[in-house]
Amino acid sequence: MTKQELKACHDRIKPFIHNTPVLTSKLINSLINAELFFKCENFQSAGAYKIRGATNAIMQLSKTEQQNGVVTHSSGNFAQALSLAANRLNIKAYIVMPSNSPKVKKNAVLEYGGEVIECKPTIEARQNAADQIVKNTGATFIHPSNDTDVILGQGTAGLELLVEHPDLDVIFCPIGGGGLIAGTALAANFNSNHCQIFGGEPLEADDAYRSLISGKIETNVSTNTIADGLRTQLGSHNFPIIKANVKQIIRVSETEIIEAMRLIWERMKIIIEPSSAVAFAAILKEKEKFKKQKIGVIISGGNVDVNNLPF
Amino acid sequence: MTKQELKACHDRIKPFIHNTPVLTSKLINSLINAELFFKCENFQSAGAYKIRGATNAIMQLSKTEQQNGVVTHSSGNFAQALSLAANRLNIKAYIVMPSNSPKVKKNAVLEYGGEVIECKPTIEARQNAADQIVKNTGATFIHPSNDTDVILGQGTAGLELLVEHPDLDVIFCPIGGGGLIAGTALAANFNSNHCQIFGGEPLEADDAYRSLISGKIETNVSTNTIADGLRTQLGSHNFPIIKANVKQIIRVSETEIIEAMRLIWERMKIIIEPSSAVAFAAILKEKEKFKKQKIGVIISGGNVDVNNLPF
Repeated sequence: MTKQELKACHDRIKPFIHNTPVLTSKLINSLINAELFFKCENFQSAGAYKIRGATNAIMQLSKTEQQNGVVTHSSGNFAQALSLAANRLNIKAYIVMPSNSPKVKKNAVLEYGGEVIECKPTIEARQNAADQIVKNTGATFIHPSNDTDVILGQGTAGLELLVEHPDLDVIFCPIGGGGLIAGTALAANFNSNHCQIFGGEPLEADDAYRSLISGKIETNVSTNTIADGLRTQLGSHNFPIIKANVKQIIRVSETEIIEAMRLIWERMKIIIEPSSAVAFAAILKEKEKFKKQKIGVIISGGNVDVNNLPF
Repeated sequence: MTKQELKACHDRIKPFIHNTPVLTSKLINSLINAELFFKCENFQSAGAYKIRGATNAIMQLSKTEQQNGVVTHSSGNFAQALSLAANRLNIKAYIVMPSNSPKVKKNAVLEYGGEVIECKPTIEARQNAADQIVKNTGATFIHPSNDTDVILGQGTAGLELLVEHPDLDVIFCPIGGGGLIAGTALAANFNSNHCQIFGGEPLEADDAYRSLISGKIETNVSTNTIADGLRTQLGSHNFPIIKANVKQIIRVSETEIIEAMRLIWERMKIIIEPSSAVAFAAILKEKEKFKKQKIGVIISGGNVDVNNLPF
């Protein structure tokens, strides 16, 4: 993937996405003793950055492929994103969702015009269900994070952030499946000569942290985290990018995630989901290391069930 | 009060306030079948528009008056605003608060450097406590809503909104003490030849609605509303402005307030307090009347206790 391909991807999907605002907070800056720039993908269409990669992946299909529709499995935000992206382009979207996904996310998929197929909450069950749909309908499977067109699309959030703030020293992303942080790392590589990429990951689903240590893709032993968008694991397409470009992954506890989320809600008056709070929690935890730096933070999404909050 | 005075007020307080963003939502526009422009004072310093009036009122005092400090009584946001405005100008702020104010608001006053004096939650008790402080300290009493310098300051939110969107057909404000809607009405008078002002008010504290009918300031029989910023009543300085300039006050139930708040939270991913939701609830309730119009909405604040939400 090249700088030109990322630029072409951004031009392609631009009519379908928001160039989301970058917010700052004096209070949070003084708390961290640094300058933070929050790229607010919680204000993105379908409430998360995922629409970027979903739109790019669909637009890269041939007309014939598009006619047969697309299928994915997702614990939430990519499901909504693919449904909305497909709907806008008049394409059918089949969404395999684990039965324990938040109800608010399932309803959103239906609202956006996707067809929900429920499965057991295991990686095997959801892949099997998706494979079956591909077989029966001829739809193209689009992986939520381990797909080069998706990775490139997700990188456009970091691209926009760096266009607006070219002098960032670091960018923090949450790590789930690895698509966002891989795309962001590419954007930084292509558009900055010094910006480093850091990840935040829940201690309770720390596959990426362990993968960077072992040098191969590790699976999660448990995924018992409130950050429901980060329960997935890295893949063959994004792991090499992450291994080559991510400086460090900082792990945070469930309490640290909830406190970081509360701080953003109370001080910035914006709604971010627990997965987004993980990146900020990682900065809070090791703030001494980032003193006086200019820090970008990708606020990945804002899809929470307000009837079921951790406060 | 004149157009020039409002402009001078805005120039005076500009270094101390944010020109807050105006947000839109396609989904909400299609729901109302109109174009809505949300002036986001929840992103203002101290989390509400109140800092505008508080700053203006303090800056209009003489040096000697400033040395003796300021005192107010407030159920919440004006308390925080006056504390912060005074703190920035190195002035002492005494804040009389009803004992049933949300804890999160009391703590914020303390954080901003104000001194809290608790009293019983009645209008008489808080005026008595404030009078006593004036007598003992020589501090100047600044009313949260019934003070011409405060009214003018609050009008700068509407001024900024109309500068950015000069073609608004209507602006909606919540009505509590009347300072915001009176200031907004002045801003519209001075800067538009057709923009009309509407108020949203809780049915459970509908003094302003009844005051417009009877032609004199009515008191609240009960103030049993979740919109804690709107439990106060109109005053002698703002009522004549409201009487002359407010087209209509639309009353909303507690359920309507909470549903409007939920809709903004879920769809716009911003945190607004119940008092702010009252204006949007009023639009939702009578949306047929505002079809195809350009509607400004002052989102007055975002100070909620996340541990005590109505969802």
